[in-house]
Amino acid sequence: MENTPLGKNEWLIPDAFYPETDNGIYVSHEAVCVLNTGDVDADIDFTLYFENAEPMTGYTAKCPARRTHHIRMDRLVSNDGKTIPRGVPYAMLVKSSVPVVVQYSRCDTTQRELAFMGLIAY
Amino acid sequence: MENTPLGKNEWLIPDAFYPETDNGIYVSHEAVCVLNTGDVDADIDFTLYFENAEPMTGYTAKCPARRTHHIRMDRLVSNDGKTIPRGVPYAMLVKSSVPVVVQYSRCDTTQRELAFMGLIAY
Amino acid sequence: MENTPLGKNEWLIPDAFYPETDNGIYVSHEAVCVLNTGDVDADIDFTLYFENAEPMTGYTAKCPARRTHHIRMDRLVSNDGKTIPRGVPYAMLVKSSVPVVVQYSRCDTTQRELAFMGLIAY
Amino acid sequence: MENTPLGKNEWLIPDAFYPETDNGIYVSHEAVCVLNTGDVDADIDFTLYFENAEPMTGYTAKCPARRTHHIRMDRLVSNDGKTIPRGVPYAMLVKSSVPVVVQYSRCDTTQRELAFMGLIAY
Repeated sequence: MENTPLGKNEWLIPDAFYPETDNGIYVSHEAVCVLNTGDVDADIDFTLYFENAEPMTGYTAKCPARRTHHIRMDRLVSNDGKTIPRGVPYAMLVKSSVPVVVQYSRCDTTQRELAFMGLIAY
Repeated sequence: MENTPLGKNEWLIPDAFYPETDNGIYVSHEAVCVLNTGDVDADIDFTLYFENAEPMTGYTAKCPARRTHHIRMDRLVSNDGKTIPRGVPYAMLVKSSVPVVVQYSRCDTTQRELAFMGLIAY
Repeated sequence: MENTPLGKNEWLIPDAFYPETDNGIYVSHEAVCVLNTGDVDADIDFTLYFENAEPMTGYTAKCPARRTHHIRMDRLVSNDGKTIPRGVPYAMLVKSSVPVVVQYSRCDTTQRELAFMGLIAY
Repeated sequence: MENTPLGKNEWLIPDAFYPETDNGIYVSHEAVCVLNTGDVDADIDFTLYFENAEPMTGYTAKCPARRTHHIRMDRLVSNDGKTIPRGVPYAMLVKSSVPVVVQYSRCDTTQRELAFMGLIAY
């Protein structure tokens, strides 16, 4: 144990959205980017919140020790085979078994050219 | 009461702006995205600040327990029927009856292609 | 004294840049957006930091009580008549006489379409 | 010693990416923008984290007293001559010998027009 696990265990992202349309070199996508500076692997657990339905759970990922994992939300599949719905506003609680740092980034190519959103989660 | 209401009760957004022009698939708009992870519904109250006039109040919204609400500012109507003025710089204080997390996002299509601004409020 | 002055007195913005080129409906510009929720006017003082020269001072602005001021950096003039240089990387310390909240926003139209950067200062 | 060194010594950036393609007036690039408000020069040390390899060290830079340094990641060379790989997701820990403030900014011109990402590191 030589490397300190920097950050915290819970991160919140109120504005998530997976656009329905792609256009150009980049595919429209969102990423939850996790940085694990410590020496213990991180088990990541997502709770998805919606406007008109109960939260969904069962979406998980890993970020190994001393690694980053740029988790593409469009490729995330829940334990029972569900993907993230496109074109629906949602929000996320990201829980990690060890302290990590989480950034949310969105890349939208709906209107042909590229638009970015990037922020450190709360 | 099983789910912790994460976040805080007051959030500030200094740079709000509802553009006057739309162009393309997306309509220019701002959203105040609220995430309520707790088991009690949130009553949301907006105070709008301007450059040359007293603050405006009377704009309200709800974010139910375990839900997100992506509040479109262009659709917000005050108790006495006022909408948000377009093309005028303003700022916001967002007050919630229970702890929530607030993100501000702007989508501008004035110059045909898409431009994003997204940030966790202070 | 009824309204609490929310925020703090010092804010830092490491990446400031006033582009040299405009294109389209919007003019390329930066804004330091101040929100003063309290009942006392705020005197704002800018210190500009550069890569190869001592800091510049003497740039001031006001944000009245219960107002926002979206300070356009391209229109800011120092006490001795200096404007902000275009095309040069710089950074800012924003000091206020009372607690305020500060957001930095950049709008770049160099390559014809609009690009945004927006963040709460540190 | 008259000027307070504002900020902190460690900053984290989970989502870094140096695009493979340029297009237009701007070159696609990332910058780690450091602001040193104090009277002692800052020695900056980067640790780069990847998805499938051990962290890389040996990338260093300086930010002199009372200066800003907008460190272009595409020009950063490690002590043993390595540059930052293009087109690969990575993350960064930025360590400074004195307190500083760090902002991460990305400018992407892959799809001809400009897209910005800007945030205060964690």
